[in-house]
Amino acid sequence: MRASDLVVPWPTVTMSTPALDTTRILADADLPGLIVVDEAGAPFAVLPGTQVLRLAVPSYYQDDPNLTHLVDEAAADVFMRELGGRTVRELLPPQPHELPVVGPEATALELAALMARTRSPLVAVVDGGRLLGAVTLHGLLDRVVPA
Amino acid sequence: MRASDLVVPWPTVTMSTPALDTTRILADADLPGLIVVDEAGAPFAVLPGTQVLRLAVPSYYQDDPNLTHLVDEAAADVFMRELGGRTVRELLPPQPHELPVVGPEATALELAALMARTRSPLVAVVDGGRLLGAVTLHGLLDRVVPA
Repeated sequence: MRASDLVVPWPTVTMSTPALDTTRILADADLPGLIVVDEAGAPFAVLPGTQVLRLAVPSYYQDDPNLTHLVDEAAADVFMRELGGRTVRELLPPQPHELPVVGPEATALELAALMARTRSPLVAVVDGGRLLGAVTLHGLLDRVVPA
Repeated sequence: MRASDLVVPWPTVTMSTPALDTTRILADADLPGLIVVDEAGAPFAVLPGTQVLRLAVPSYYQDDPNLTHLVDEAAADVFMRELGGRTVRELLPPQPHELPVVGPEATALELAALMARTRSPLVAVVDGGRLLGAVTLHGLLDRVVPA
């Protein structure tokens, strides 16, 4: 089996999508992550769910457990309000050296090793720069876990 | 809201669980990850789905895209056969410095920042060393994304 056998259509966002909308798309469709595309429609970033969430956590809280601990329960419940209208472009977390992106010929083993290495539960599939969709961790597991 | 309001029961595995069984549990229940508990039942590791998959990718393939590319499609389809009866103990990936584990009082913001920082879509909740269950990324998003 190849990536072309496992790929499914996948929602995309752009650099100008409000960050709050990305969390809504993720939550409403119960997705493991999202693909950020550039103006030509090619994948610019692949964001696992945790990194979509990272868009929504104010930067001064992201790496300081002591600071988050000082925020009271009522304010912590509404931390996403601090996002305002900021876009993906303004908040995109640092991208890994290796993007989880493959061509349609990638094998099950290549997909699995790439997901494990990049810690991404989805891999974008491109053909000649055009995004075909994504292969998900669970889509892959359903085919490779021995009965 | 606190972790105690968001926690749900979560399946656990131990260091002696066969690695293949962990991938089956993940696939069958469509989970974002698993918790590995020690002999006392406390969390020893929290494995996002990609790191459960990592248990199943032979180590010599994990970090070498060129090597995985040499494996033909038929062999790549059955890469998990190479696992044999190896256990979680034998295959556990390196653990991060910070485990995604909180007490029942952790706020929504603390949970979100921890998931973003550790790249884990689940956080184990413990009370006095006893595992209460897990808070998932989607369980959290459902409560914090503004309507």
